[in-house]
Amino acid sequence: MGKAPVPEADPSSLITHLRSVLPKDGTREVLITSVIPTLLQSIAGVAEALRASCHVAAAGTANTFGDDQLNVDVTAENVIREAITHCPSIVTASSEEDPVERPVQHAHPSQAGQEQYTLAFDPLDGSSIISANWTVGTIMSLWDGPTALNQDPATKQVGAILGVLGPRTTAIVALRIHPSDQLPTCFEVALDPTNSNWHVTRPALTLAPRARIFAPANLRSAAEPGNAAYMKLIADHYIASRRLTLRYAGGLVPDIAHALIAGQGVYLNPVTANNPAKLRRLYELCPIALVIECAGGAALDPVSEERVLAREMRDCGEKGGLVCGSAEEVEEAVARLAGGEKATEGS
Amino acid sequence: MGKAPVPEADPSSLITHLRSVLPKDGTREVLITSVIPTLLQSIAGVAEALRASCHVAAAGTANTFGDDQLNVDVTAENVIREAITHCPSIVTASSEEDPVERPVQHAHPSQAGQEQYTLAFDPLDGSSIISANWTVGTIMSLWDGPTALNQDPATKQVGAILGVLGPRTTAIVALRIHPSDQLPTCFEVALDPTNSNWHVTRPALTLAPRARIFAPANLRSAAEPGNAAYMKLIADHYIASRRLTLRYAGGLVPDIAHALIAGQGVYLNPVTANNPAKLRRLYELCPIALVIECAGGAALDPVSEERVLAREMRDCGEKGGLVCGSAEEVEEAVARLAGGEKATEGS
Repeated sequence: MGKAPVPEADPSSLITHLRSVLPKDGTREVLITSVIPTLLQSIAGVAEALRASCHVAAAGTANTFGDDQLNVDVTAENVIREAITHCPSIVTASSEEDPVERPVQHAHPSQAGQEQYTLAFDPLDGSSIISANWTVGTIMSLWDGPTALNQDPATKQVGAILGVLGPRTTAIVALRIHPSDQLPTCFEVALDPTNSNWHVTRPALTLAPRARIFAPANLRSAAEPGNAAYMKLIADHYIASRRLTLRYAGGLVPDIAHALIAGQGVYLNPVTANNPAKLRRLYELCPIALVIECAGGAALDPVSEERVLAREMRDCGEKGGLVCGSAEEVEEAVARLAGGEKATEGS
Repeated sequence: MGKAPVPEADPSSLITHLRSVLPKDGTREVLITSVIPTLLQSIAGVAEALRASCHVAAAGTANTFGDDQLNVDVTAENVIREAITHCPSIVTASSEEDPVERPVQHAHPSQAGQEQYTLAFDPLDGSSIISANWTVGTIMSLWDGPTALNQDPATKQVGAILGVLGPRTTAIVALRIHPSDQLPTCFEVALDPTNSNWHVTRPALTLAPRARIFAPANLRSAAEPGNAAYMKLIADHYIASRRLTLRYAGGLVPDIAHALIAGQGVYLNPVTANNPAKLRRLYELCPIALVIECAGGAALDPVSEERVLAREMRDCGEKGGLVCGSAEEVEEAVARLAGGEKATEGS
């Protein structure tokens, strides 16, 4: 299969909304009219390419038509890389498939302006569930300036987009500009496939402080002797005492999107000695944390107990754990995980 | 929104496969050339209607365009009802949205032939996860003759289809004809959106006897005093001892599809005094059980410990629990759930 087509968009309702939530002084004009629309268009292109990949299978899996089996990760990577060549303000890019920051080669380089952004993206997250045709996602992180490295994530990461590739094509957009009079914002858009327009479907996503739904990642690690606190939190606290409802897709984007659309939820991906951190800070943790914080939630590192966004990155490969979602629930979960660890170590 | 379009299909590869797995004596010619293709086409129509419903939301949920909010359940129901009017051999139909068996009014009633089938369907299963844009599904059950009631499900239910509405449109088809020299079969097809053809992507889905993945429905009920066996099975056995991997979408179709594509898995939906049965036997349990059995797995009623398909239905509204998937795992889970209940009652 060749290059996937990127549908043209007429993002009128999107741009109207972006103007209402971003600074009015013209300093983010390219972000509004070019960067966000281009990135959303590329997500529509990824969705279209995936939808047409009827023989998709996990790498190495046989199918009945061995000659045309797609590597949808690579297809998604190529769709996004191609799209940003048309956006002169995205000057640097790196991705989970190619985790090195490089200058973007633009189709029309002379158009570069005063706004400069760095894009970090995970083109297709959810490899363990894509074969079963479950919802997967694209994760994008947008930084002010020519690099995401050695920058303060809390102020230099200005935007994040979670493309939700399910029965519909939707996306969650978070924006937080420093300094600005505008409040941080998190909203949902949905693609109308009949005309390739993105519509703002939920203009303000917020997370209540308490959760009724939990999503426990890497639950197998709860069996480890050093991780008794995780088992206790899940079995005794969430199930037996609090009677929370379980929803766990095992894909970061669907699990986080579920909490945001439900308006509450807690996602847990703890780290222990035998259960090393797996989530990439640049391509997964930082954009997820920005989305969650812009919705009024919390995203903490379960080891340091700090905000995920508290510490800058030295390289593109850094990893970490994650507890995020409804703010009070996240604080309590991290305290219980830490307290339990200490109790276990001290016994 | 008006009537959703049902894409035309050129199901050549599908029909070739159906001929290879169904009786060669001509007694199922209409099933091969009309019934299965029509039902799959209607699933493509449901997927297309859902994909275009960019403002979909749970009933009663506000959105920014209150005037055009869709009830996708009703849309899906209408798409399937319209499709079967063109299939004279489907003589009776009922659905979870309209659970009364009625004769189908056909566009060309004079074409009725010797094969007669009853369709029972759940047009759009997964209402709790559809807003978050997670994969949902359509469930179809096909019976020999003019009714599904007071019939032996193990021999009169000849087919089932699970339409998997995710980033792609796929379906799992199970067929078991009695009497026949042909073995029961379970296979996956995927829709090519560029030409509306369904391709056979996994010609034989099978479930290994043991599971590495578990999907515990209604886990909140494990907190009930009478349901200690469920908590013990999940926390002590699956997580702590067996270290199984958790995947739980909370939608029957994605959860069952995940096990079938992974080739193993156990799905649990137990029933206790305070946790009454919720799954409909006609629209959910029987078709799921046929699919699982045709893949070599087991589907048991956790209360009677019998096969789901052991008992005929007296009316369309009957409900039950479900433990299904990898056969040895299912047998063990039902025994552990029953043993625990007895132990609790005796203590």
